Amino acid sequence: MTDSESDARFKRDTSSNPDSAHAGDTRALALAARVKLMAFDVDGTLTDGGILISAGGELFKRFSVRDGLGLVMLQQAGIRVALVTGRSSEIVAQRARELKIDTVLQGVADKAHAMRELCEQGGLTLEQAGFMGDDWPDLPAMQAVGFAAAVPDAAMEVQRIAHYVASAPAGAGAARELAEFVLRAQNRLASSLGRFDGRAA
Amino acid sequence: MTDSESDARFKRDTSSNPDSAHAGDTRALALAARVKLMAFDVDGTLTDGGILISAGGELFKRFSVRDGLGLVMLQQAGIRVALVTGRSSEIVAQRARELKIDTVLQGVADKAHAMRELCEQGGLTLEQAGFMGDDWPDLPAMQAVGFAAAVPDAAMEVQRIAHYVASAPAGAGAARELAEFVLRAQNRLASSLGRFDGRAA
Amino acid sequence: MTDSESDARFKRDTSSNPDSAHAGDTRALALAARVKLMAFDVDGTLTDGGILISAGGELFKRFSVRDGLGLVMLQQAGIRVALVTGRSSEIVAQRARELKIDTVLQGVADKAHAMRELCEQGGLTLEQAGFMGDDWPDLPAMQAVGFAAAVPDAAMEVQRIAHYVASAPAGAGAARELAEFVLRAQNRLASSLGRFDGRAA
Amino acid sequence: MTDSESDARFKRDTSSNPDSAHAGDTRALALAARVKLMAFDVDGTLTDGGILISAGGELFKRFSVRDGLGLVMLQQAGIRVALVTGRSSEIVAQRARELKIDTVLQGVADKAHAMRELCEQGGLTLEQAGFMGDDWPDLPAMQAVGFAAAVPDAAMEVQRIAHYVASAPAGAGAARELAEFVLRAQNRLASSLGRFDGRAA
Repeated sequence: MTDSESDARFKRDTSSNPDSAHAGDTRALALAARVKLMAFDVDGTLTDGGILISAGGELFKRFSVRDGLGLVMLQQAGIRVALVTGRSSEIVAQRARELKIDTVLQGVADKAHAMRELCEQGGLTLEQAGFMGDDWPDLPAMQAVGFAAAVPDAAMEVQRIAHYVASAPAGAGAARELAEFVLRAQNRLASSLGRFDGRAA
Repeated sequence: MTDSESDARFKRDTSSNPDSAHAGDTRALALAARVKLMAFDVDGTLTDGGILISAGGELFKRFSVRDGLGLVMLQQAGIRVALVTGRSSEIVAQRARELKIDTVLQGVADKAHAMRELCEQGGLTLEQAGFMGDDWPDLPAMQAVGFAAAVPDAAMEVQRIAHYVASAPAGAGAARELAEFVLRAQNRLASSLGRFDGRAA
Repeated sequence: MTDSESDARFKRDTSSNPDSAHAGDTRALALAARVKLMAFDVDGTLTDGGILISAGGELFKRFSVRDGLGLVMLQQAGIRVALVTGRSSEIVAQRARELKIDTVLQGVADKAHAMRELCEQGGLTLEQAGFMGDDWPDLPAMQAVGFAAAVPDAAMEVQRIAHYVASAPAGAGAARELAEFVLRAQNRLASSLGRFDGRAA
Repeated sequence: MTDSESDARFKRDTSSNPDSAHAGDTRALALAARVKLMAFDVDGTLTDGGILISAGGELFKRFSVRDGLGLVMLQQAGIRVALVTGRSSEIVAQRARELKIDTVLQGVADKAHAMRELCEQGGLTLEQAGFMGDDWPDLPAMQAVGFAAAVPDAAMEVQRIAHYVASAPAGAGAARELAEFVLRAQNRLASSLGRFDGRAA
């Protein structure tokens, strides 16, 4: 495959989503309205891509408190949340426990395959699944599911096939923005907010 | 509650604070002038919202040396400082000890309730309390107290009800800016600065 | 040597690479097309220059997951990757193992000498080697090899002699951008991407 | 002292340095030319002001590899370097050892007093000393020495009395920029660079 073939393929994908990314979210809202399982890549999506290495290996990851609230809100609204990552670390398991996410797939070489299996196990179609990613290894999963989201500094090829590209940075609001977008698409955002307002709290 | 109802509610709150946020701080200065207890959310307010997770749990938080000086200045001026956070960690207790803050409430589900209790215990009215926050869980406390402040990248709903929105970023000057604003409102800023100038030091 | 002599020397170097840096990458592409060994400085090039010091010494370095994928892609395309750094730490060895980089030279005082030795051992000419750096200690190596690349916030003297200056920041995409540039120069970028697309994965 | 008195005092200081900060560095160059002892605050000056707190106390500080090279260059040119900080930690001692800085004053309440003592011990006048800082506790020392430098996001009162305000951020080039400025003022920059160029290395 040459570079120009590659470009052509991506252009075709893009043309089928003319209003991908920021402009006119009508189609993205329709796709997000169907989502019952929302999966997230970890490094570069729930983090800013920083890999913090000590002499003993990976020391920590930097997540966002507001992204975390977004993932909690999704689950409170009955949307299943999954973390799907190519790397493998106890760090991700720790963060998942904090947020009560029980679907955590690590060391995943083929993320599209992982999404197909998750859907099958959950009795869902791929159209009912979403995937948010940032880099080339996320492309197959994003092409497989019904709703593909990207962080704003995602690789160009990833942004091109995304139905929704967040404005807030990876690891600092992108997942929260996505969560609010999905909840809005499903008319559940106000009730999520209601849990935190002056009367409900 | 629908999204539009939610919008209406926030619009009403906003209209009662026409010069909220940056423009014309006259009303905010008047409200800040009464503050005898200033409470701060931690994650996203005294930090940039980063949650640093190691294999063993939360490894550290990133505070600001200049925010810390602001909190010290408030206390030196006789204003009580409190940290009120939904999460729970020894890290916050450590930072509070460094800054000689003895009112630290962690694992707080209902921050408005916490503020009411703090005021009652201290013999203060809610009008004499301030709260600085960044996200939805801070809304009830911010609506309960007399002076509500937000960091510049706070959730939109939080910014809308704040009497003062800092320009300096969360975890990097927002709390310092707020501290100087409160001290200025109480005509105590120059005396705070006096402690550090060439003659006093 | 006076400042003006120094300027003159750098001006001469620059004039021999009229389209260095961003403008017109034709010459840079030609030079990158020959690269069979691509070496990277570590601090300030594969990181943002942050030196994270604990009471026990250097605690960690912050690398980038996307830079890491770039280094993997280079190797998968048959281009040897080397890390060449003046500092010395087990941290760099750890990251190198993750990325299956076996050429790691630490505590290097003379990086030009290191590059000459690496080329000799590998049966390569210096024209077949590239070096990406950020600061004065990288100058000799960058002047010795056939293809010199810099990060965008490199010292001015380093940018002046670079054939290619990345747009993405050091420690956050600069090395990835460089890797894609070299692969494009060698007509291997599309095949690298092919490994990650929907059909190949 | 009222706010307006405070303003007047700072205005007076400013008027005596009409070209303080960025514009026209002529006077700053003249002052820097005399420097034989250059002191640096640590938090907010050699770091970005981040205080990284773990459950066991301060975990690490983030320094800059390029700032470090600047401090080494100053010493190689025969200019004594000192770290003077109000906080106290083994972390600073570690970084100082790496850079072969043997004058490290920690837990300093009165930085002006510390500078007077350092000068006395070294047989220097205060005019031969410089101080770089970022916040109110640095004001007295900056007013005491002959050459006062500030980081770009220093408190306004600090910027006002600085003879030189760096453009590069604190903890990410400010100290390096200052080091090069001092070396240029003393006509020693080219010889510093010479140590790293293609012929010298």
